[in-house]
Amino acid sequence: MGMIGGGRGAFIGGVHRIAAAIDGQIELVAGALHVDPEIALLSGQDLFLKPERTYRTYVEMFEKESQLNPDERMDFVSIVTPNHVHFDPAKRALENGFHVVCEKPLSFNLDEAKQLQDLVHQKNLIFALTHTYTGYPMIKQAREMLTTGVFGKLRKVIVEYPQGWLSTPLEKTGQQQASWRTDPKKSGKAGAVGDIGTHAENLAETITGLKITEVSADVTTFVDGRLLDDDANVLIRFDNGAKGVLHCSQIAAGEENALNIRVYGEKGGIEWHQHDPNTMYVKWLDKPMQVYRTGQGYMGASAQAHTRVPAGHPEGYLEAFGNIYRDFAKVLQAKLDGSEADPLHIDFPTVDDGVRGMQFIDAVIESGENNAAWTSLH
Amino acid sequence: MGMIGGGRGAFIGGVHRIAAAIDGQIELVAGALHVDPEIALLSGQDLFLKPERTYRTYVEMFEKESQLNPDERMDFVSIVTPNHVHFDPAKRALENGFHVVCEKPLSFNLDEAKQLQDLVHQKNLIFALTHTYTGYPMIKQAREMLTTGVFGKLRKVIVEYPQGWLSTPLEKTGQQQASWRTDPKKSGKAGAVGDIGTHAENLAETITGLKITEVSADVTTFVDGRLLDDDANVLIRFDNGAKGVLHCSQIAAGEENALNIRVYGEKGGIEWHQHDPNTMYVKWLDKPMQVYRTGQGYMGASAQAHTRVPAGHPEGYLEAFGNIYRDFAKVLQAKLDGSEADPLHIDFPTVDDGVRGMQFIDAVIESGENNAAWTSLH
Amino acid sequence: MGMIGGGRGAFIGGVHRIAAAIDGQIELVAGALHVDPEIALLSGQDLFLKPERTYRTYVEMFEKESQLNPDERMDFVSIVTPNHVHFDPAKRALENGFHVVCEKPLSFNLDEAKQLQDLVHQKNLIFALTHTYTGYPMIKQAREMLTTGVFGKLRKVIVEYPQGWLSTPLEKTGQQQASWRTDPKKSGKAGAVGDIGTHAENLAETITGLKITEVSADVTTFVDGRLLDDDANVLIRFDNGAKGVLHCSQIAAGEENALNIRVYGEKGGIEWHQHDPNTMYVKWLDKPMQVYRTGQGYMGASAQAHTRVPAGHPEGYLEAFGNIYRDFAKVLQAKLDGSEADPLHIDFPTVDDGVRGMQFIDAVIESGENNAAWTSLH
Amino acid sequence: MGMIGGGRGAFIGGVHRIAAAIDGQIELVAGALHVDPEIALLSGQDLFLKPERTYRTYVEMFEKESQLNPDERMDFVSIVTPNHVHFDPAKRALENGFHVVCEKPLSFNLDEAKQLQDLVHQKNLIFALTHTYTGYPMIKQAREMLTTGVFGKLRKVIVEYPQGWLSTPLEKTGQQQASWRTDPKKSGKAGAVGDIGTHAENLAETITGLKITEVSADVTTFVDGRLLDDDANVLIRFDNGAKGVLHCSQIAAGEENALNIRVYGEKGGIEWHQHDPNTMYVKWLDKPMQVYRTGQGYMGASAQAHTRVPAGHPEGYLEAFGNIYRDFAKVLQAKLDGSEADPLHIDFPTVDDGVRGMQFIDAVIESGENNAAWTSLH
Repeated sequence: MGMIGGGRGAFIGGVHRIAAAIDGQIELVAGALHVDPEIALLSGQDLFLKPERTYRTYVEMFEKESQLNPDERMDFVSIVTPNHVHFDPAKRALENGFHVVCEKPLSFNLDEAKQLQDLVHQKNLIFALTHTYTGYPMIKQAREMLTTGVFGKLRKVIVEYPQGWLSTPLEKTGQQQASWRTDPKKSGKAGAVGDIGTHAENLAETITGLKITEVSADVTTFVDGRLLDDDANVLIRFDNGAKGVLHCSQIAAGEENALNIRVYGEKGGIEWHQHDPNTMYVKWLDKPMQVYRTGQGYMGASAQAHTRVPAGHPEGYLEAFGNIYRDFAKVLQAKLDGSEADPLHIDFPTVDDGVRGMQFIDAVIESGENNAAWTSLH
Repeated sequence: MGMIGGGRGAFIGGVHRIAAAIDGQIELVAGALHVDPEIALLSGQDLFLKPERTYRTYVEMFEKESQLNPDERMDFVSIVTPNHVHFDPAKRALENGFHVVCEKPLSFNLDEAKQLQDLVHQKNLIFALTHTYTGYPMIKQAREMLTTGVFGKLRKVIVEYPQGWLSTPLEKTGQQQASWRTDPKKSGKAGAVGDIGTHAENLAETITGLKITEVSADVTTFVDGRLLDDDANVLIRFDNGAKGVLHCSQIAAGEENALNIRVYGEKGGIEWHQHDPNTMYVKWLDKPMQVYRTGQGYMGASAQAHTRVPAGHPEGYLEAFGNIYRDFAKVLQAKLDGSEADPLHIDFPTVDDGVRGMQFIDAVIESGENNAAWTSLH
Repeated sequence: MGMIGGGRGAFIGGVHRIAAAIDGQIELVAGALHVDPEIALLSGQDLFLKPERTYRTYVEMFEKESQLNPDERMDFVSIVTPNHVHFDPAKRALENGFHVVCEKPLSFNLDEAKQLQDLVHQKNLIFALTHTYTGYPMIKQAREMLTTGVFGKLRKVIVEYPQGWLSTPLEKTGQQQASWRTDPKKSGKAGAVGDIGTHAENLAETITGLKITEVSADVTTFVDGRLLDDDANVLIRFDNGAKGVLHCSQIAAGEENALNIRVYGEKGGIEWHQHDPNTMYVKWLDKPMQVYRTGQGYMGASAQAHTRVPAGHPEGYLEAFGNIYRDFAKVLQAKLDGSEADPLHIDFPTVDDGVRGMQFIDAVIESGENNAAWTSLH
Repeated sequence: MGMIGGGRGAFIGGVHRIAAAIDGQIELVAGALHVDPEIALLSGQDLFLKPERTYRTYVEMFEKESQLNPDERMDFVSIVTPNHVHFDPAKRALENGFHVVCEKPLSFNLDEAKQLQDLVHQKNLIFALTHTYTGYPMIKQAREMLTTGVFGKLRKVIVEYPQGWLSTPLEKTGQQQASWRTDPKKSGKAGAVGDIGTHAENLAETITGLKITEVSADVTTFVDGRLLDDDANVLIRFDNGAKGVLHCSQIAAGEENALNIRVYGEKGGIEWHQHDPNTMYVKWLDKPMQVYRTGQGYMGASAQAHTRVPAGHPEGYLEAFGNIYRDFAKVLQAKLDGSEADPLHIDFPTVDDGVRGMQFIDAVIESGENNAAWTSLH
C-alpha cells in the first residue's frame, strides 16, 4: 500500500495504518505523506519508509510506482487527505491502474464524485470508502436482521451523530483538525453535514437497505464567525414509505462521537450506539427486549466473519476500520489471484456509497438554504 | 375532591386517586365517574363513595355540590375523561367556583382552551393540568440548571417520546384506551401528537424556559385505517435561536414510554430519561460527565421540595403525579387559609400550559398537512 | 391502623404512612408516635390524628384501643421504632389481639424473635415484616422464574448491599438515623449486618427459595470509634449446594442503596438492581440476554398482581412498600370477612422471615468474631 | 519476534500476533507454533513465515536462532502455550539471552515461577506477562487516582470475573480451549482460579497498589466429573487493612468476560467494567458521580500514553493487549539502543506479577482445601 497524506500532524492517517496492519496482510511500502514536500520526507522517515519510495508529491508517487515491476510496486493507495485533495489523487490512481482506499466524504463536490464513480466502473478497479462505522460486526448483524424481514416492513429510523468538540471556535486556535473541517475551501460546502452527517446517512441506508428519497433540513452555524454549518436537524423520507430523523452536530457540548441509530419495523426493531459497539438492543412488540453481543454463537455469518476475538473481549473502532481493510485486501487478493472473492468479504463501502454521500450533502445543504424545503437526493 | 370520569374500565382515574392519596392530604368525597350513569353508580360503590355523593352526571354533581355547606362540599374537581369531555365539565366547575385538576391535553381544540384560560383568570381559581412528567424531582433540577445559565446560552434540544403500543390496529379489538385515543371525535385533530407530543413540548419548554416559535412537522399515520396520526417527526425552533427536534410515535415497536430529553448549551448540557427518572446526566465541554441523583444533598431547593425519600429509594411516576396534587393542594390550602403559598410549591402546570399545548397541536397538524411547511405557534 | 413511633424527626414512619395510604384502603386512626410523650402528642397534631386517639405511650394505646368497639378500634398496629423497641410493643399488640406490621430486623435478639414467632402462631394473628425490597413486582417475577426450574438447578448467588452514608462518623454529629443505628443498645449486636445485611439475606432466600445453611463472615468496623460493624463480606452456602457471596457496607463511599442480586443456574440466571427496580436481566447460556420490564404482558401472575401502572411508568420504593401494606390489608380483610384470602396476595414477609433474619445476624456476627469460621444458621 | 505455540486450533496466539502488529513496530520472524511438528510447519505456512525459520520445536528454535547474526535473529520470544509449557521454553529463552513475552499464569507451579524470576533478574532480561486487562488506558487512570490519595485511605475492594462458558462439560466435546483448561496436567492445580482468578488478583493489586495478604476461599467444582475448580468465592485482606471480595467463575451461565472492579476509599472510589473498558465511574461521598472516558483531555499522563484514538472511538481488548507489546517493545528498543526507557512505557506486568499470581493460586487452592481457612500469600 501507498499512502497519500497522513504525515506529521495528521490524525486519520495513523488510524489507517493501524487498520491496515492489524491483520498482518498489508504492508505500507510507499508514501506521499504531506502537502509540504519536506514534511512529506520527514514523515516517511518517521514511518521507516524506504527513502526511494518516500515521495515529495503524489504525482511523483504515481509516476514512479507505475514504473516499478508489478511484483514490487504498491497494489493500492490510501488517500487520507482533507476533502479537497481526494479527487485528484483518486483520479490519478485509477488512471494509473491502482486500486484505492479513500477517506470520506468521497470528494469536494458531487460532480467529482460522479467522475470517480465512472472511472472506477470503467477501469474495473476496487475502490473502498472508509465509512468505518459499517465495519462493526454488530452493524453486519443489524443489516442482516433488518433487510430479511425479521421485523416486518420498516417504518421509522432515528439516526444521530452529536459531537461537541467544535462548541467553541477551535479553528481560531490553529488546531489542524478543526481548521480544515471548517474551511469551505478544503471541506466543500458542508461542515458537520459532510464530516459526520454522511456517516449517519451511510449507516441508515446500509443497515436498512432503504434509500433516502428526500430531506427537509434545518442547517445552522452556531459558533460566530464559523464558515460552515456545525449543526443540522433533518427530516428524512425513505423509498419504502418509512420516515425518520437524522441529526448531527459539532456543538452538542459534552458529546463525543455519539453515532446512534434506532430502526422500528412493524414487529420490533433495533437500537445501536457506537460508543458500545458490541451491543445491540433488539426490541419486540410483545416479548422482552434482547441484548445481542458480538462474538456470540447466535450471531449471523456476516457478523461472525468480521469478529476477531470471542464474546466479552471488546472490539472497537480500530477493528471496525480494520475490517474494511481486511475485506478490501481479500477482494484485492482474489482479483490478483484471478479467483472468486468470498461474498462474506465483498462487504465494504465503495465509490457508489461515496456518490450517495455527496448527493446527501447537496440535498441537505440546498434544503437548508431554502428554509428546510423538501429536497430530493439525486 | 370530586372526580369526573375514572370509573370502571378507565386507566388514568386510578392513577389520579393514588396521586391524590399518597400524601394523605386529599380525600375523594364525590364523583361522576362514568358517562353511563349506571356504571357511574357502580364505580362509586367500588370506591366506597357515599351513595348521596355518587352522581349520575357531572352536571348533577356541580348542582348538588354547590348547594352543600362550604365546609362539606368538594373543594376541587379532577377531570380524568377523554379529551372531548374536558371543556364542558371544566367550564361548569369554574363557573360554579370549583378549582380544577384536569387531564391533558386541555381541551378538544384551541378555542375551548382559550375560553377556559379566560375563565380561570377571571374567576381567580386554581387550575392544574396533569403534565405529570414535570413533577419529577429531577425535572425541577434540570429546569433550575438550564434556566440559570449554568450551561451558557442554550443551543439545541432533542426531545422524544416513542411508544410502541399502537403498532397494530389495537383500536379494532375494542381496547378502550386505544379506541378513544384514535377517534377524532374524542381526541380532536391529533393522535400521537396530542396524547404524547404535547408532553414532549411541555417538558422541553418547561425545563429550558424557552418557547417554541415554529415547527416543521412530518406527521404520519402508519397503521392502515387509523383515523389519526400515530407518528410525527418535528423540527423545532425556539425564541432564543435554539434549534431542535421533537419526535413522538405510537408505532415505535418495542418502546414503552421513552420520553427522553437532551439539551445542549454553550458549556454543556443535560440528558434525562423518563424510564430512569431519578438520574440525570450532566455533560460538560472539558470535564467528566456527572450523574445527578434524586435525593442527594447537592440537589437544588426545588428538587428537594419534591422528593419524599432519601437517595437510593427510587421514586416513580406516581410520586411525580403526586407532586402535582400536593403542590395544588398546598396552593389551594393557602388560598383557603388566606395565606401566602410557598413559592416552592407554586409549581405545577396550569391552564396556560394547556393553551400552549393546544397551540402546539394546531401548529404541528397544520404543518403536517402542508408537507412540513414552517408553522408558527400562536 | 395505629402507629408506634414515626413522629417528628423520624424517617421510616412517613414512608409507612404513604405506603399505607397509597391504595386508599387503610386509614391511620391512632398513634403513640414518639418515646417522648410531649413530642408524641405534637406529632399526632401534625398528622391530624384525633386528640383522644393520640396516645402518650404505646402501653396506653393498647389499653385504650382494646376497650373500643371492634368497629371503631384500630385493626392493626405498625411498629416503626428502632430495633430495641420492636419486641415489647409487638408482644403487647399480639397479646391484645392486634395484628402487626413491624419494621425489620424483627427484634433486638434471636430469643425475642422466637417468642414473637410463637405468639403469632399461637394467637393466629397476621404479622408482616417490612422487608420492602421483596415487594417489587420484578422480585415476584424473579422468584417465579428461579423457583420453577426455568434455569435448572441454582448454583451461585451474588447479593450485595453497599451504602456509603456512614463513611464518616456521622453519628457524632447527632444525626438521628445514624445515632441509633450505630448504638448497640438500640440496634442490637449488629450494625450494617442488621440494618441492610438482613435485607440482602431476605432477598436471596426469597427469590431462590433456598436457605442459607452457613456463613463465613469478615465483619469490620472501618470508622474509628464506631461501636458496631459498618461492613461485612460473607461467603454463603445454601441447602441445595449452591454457593455465594453476600456483602454489605455502610462505608462504600458514593453508593446509595445499591441492593443488587445475581443468581446463576445451570441454564442461565437473573440480575436485578434495586436502583432500577422495574428491569431484570435474564441471562442464558446460548441465547441473547433478555430484559424483562415491569408491567409488560409477558410478566407472570404474581408480578402483575403487584403492579399499579402500565409498563413504562416507573414504579418505585413506595409502591413496593405499598404492596406489603396492600397484601397485608387484603389478607386482613379476608380474615375479618371470614373469607379465603387470594393466594396472590398472601405474599409478604412474616414473623418467620424475621426469625430467619435474626438467625442470620447471629451467625454472621459470631463468624466475624471467630475470624470468619463457618457458622450455621439455626 | 518468535512465537511458541499459537498455531492451528489455538486462540490466544492470534491475539498476540494482532497485538504485536497493531503498531507496526514488531515483526513475526520465527516460530515453533505447535507441539506437533507437522502442524507447526503447516502453521508457519499459514502465517507466511520463512520455511527456514519455521521450527519443529522450540528447542530447535532457540538453538538455531541463537546462531543467527544479532541483527537478524529474533529479539524476543512470545510464549502462548498452555500453562504446563510456559516454564521450559521461558527458561531456555532466558538462558539463551532472549527477552520474553509470556502468557499467564506464569508457570505450572510456584517453584517454577520463582526459578524464572531469579533467572530474569540474574540475566537482566525483559519479561512481560500478558495480564492484558491492565493494558487498558482506563486502568492506568484508575491506578493513578487510587494510588495518589485522591480517595483517601482505601477500605474495600470488590473484584469479580464471572464467565459462563464452562457451565456444561464442554471439555468432553473435545473443544480445545476447554480441554486443556480443565486438565490438571496442563493447567496445574487450579482451573477458574488460575485462568481468570489471577486476572482479578492482578487487576486489584495493580490499581490499588496494595498487596493481598491472606485469603479465605470457597472453591468449588460444579460440573460433574470436572477435574479442576470452576468457581471460587474468596474473602481477601490487604496489607493496609482494606478488606474485600474476589469471586470468579466459569459456570456463571450467561456471562461473557465480566471482569469488574469497585474500590472504595474514605472519600469516594471507582467502578470499572471490562465490557465497557473506556468508561470509569468515579464516586464521591457528597458530589455527583463522574464518568471518566478514555481519550478525554482530563485523563492523566499514563492513560494518555496508552490511548491511540480520540475520545468516542472505542478502544478494545486488542488495543489493551497491544499496549503491553508496545511498552515491551519500547523498553526493549531502549535497551538495544543503550538509552533510557520512557518511564511512561515501563508499564507492563512482569515476572514479578507472575510469581504473585502463582502465590495467589497456591493460597486460594490451599484455603479451599481447608474449608476456607485464612491462608497467607507467600
